Amino acid sequence: MKVLQLVGFKNSGKTTIAKEIISHLTEKGLKVASLKHHGHGGIPEGIDNTDSEQHLQAGSQISGVLGEHILQLSHSVDWDVEQILAIYKQFQHDMLIVEGFKDLAYPKIILLRNQHDLTELQHLENIIGVVKPRNVMIDNCHKPIFDFKNIEEICGWVYQGYSEGKL
Amino acid sequence: MKVLQLVGFKNSGKTTIAKEIISHLTEKGLKVASLKHHGHGGIPEGIDNTDSEQHLQAGSQISGVLGEHILQLSHSVDWDVEQILAIYKQFQHDMLIVEGFKDLAYPKIILLRNQHDLTELQHLENIIGVVKPRNVMIDNCHKPIFDFKNIEEICGWVYQGYSEGKL
Repeated sequence: MKVLQLVGFKNSGKTTIAKEIISHLTEKGLKVASLKHHGHGGIPEGIDNTDSEQHLQAGSQISGVLGEHILQLSHSVDWDVEQILAIYKQFQHDMLIVEGFKDLAYPKIILLRNQHDLTELQHLENIIGVVKPRNVMIDNCHKPIFDFKNIEEICGWVYQGYSEGKL
Repeated sequence: MKVLQLVGFKNSGKTTIAKEIISHLTEKGLKVASLKHHGHGGIPEGIDNTDSEQHLQAGSQISGVLGEHILQLSHSVDWDVEQILAIYKQFQHDMLIVEGFKDLAYPKIILLRNQHDLTELQHLENIIGVVKPRNVMIDNCHKPIFDFKNIEEICGWVYQGYSEGKL
């Protein structure tokens, strides 16, 4: 399972790009999965926090609640991303699109809203491409740069990278 | 990983018993996990259904959202319980306590509220014990029967079953 990260600050368009890439790769016949970080901070309300919390408080290390197509797994500690990736791996997807988790070392596209975002994100590991609005200028970038409006090109380039084993 | 099911109708006390068993086994040094079925019917609201649904609609087969210790995995189809058990298995718990899922074939304790519940549940596969209120009478039962009030005894019996490899 290949992993591609989409990294950028709030409202940088990660979900917009993610949806289009997922859609494009799915049309090409790939089995795609996705993962995103809940960016609102704090512990979100879950589908059935009450019983789940009671199980955790009793000593359960992972407390799960299933409601038809939604499975909520509460861990007694914070989830380690590698544990989550191990879960995905057993389903043998061709590609996992990850929104966020900027400190992971998987191949990543960074999404810039402005010049400042570039300063903040350019040190990240394994950047393979940059997506930006037309009015943001970038000097001395040795990676492919895409205009945010040109999503079709981005999707094609991702699929090509997958096909050629470069991801 | 051993699996023990707790099966009974709504308000039969599954969560009460589950908590005590989890707590007891944890005190004994076991690594315990738990899983419950969301019994309210329909598709529950998740921690971030909006983006998750968008990923699914784009073609993602499993769309995950992580918020600190809660991981919500939305499947493009209903989850198969065996897929969920496979997730748990990779964490190498000693025991998984499952609330509900009465049609699974794992060892199970049935929780009765009344005589009628017995009629409904007695045909289930792999019943190893029965928990009931004092005023419910059961004839011709060849499994251990516990009073709902005697939770300590139930927990001790579960741990003994685990220790002796009978679960």
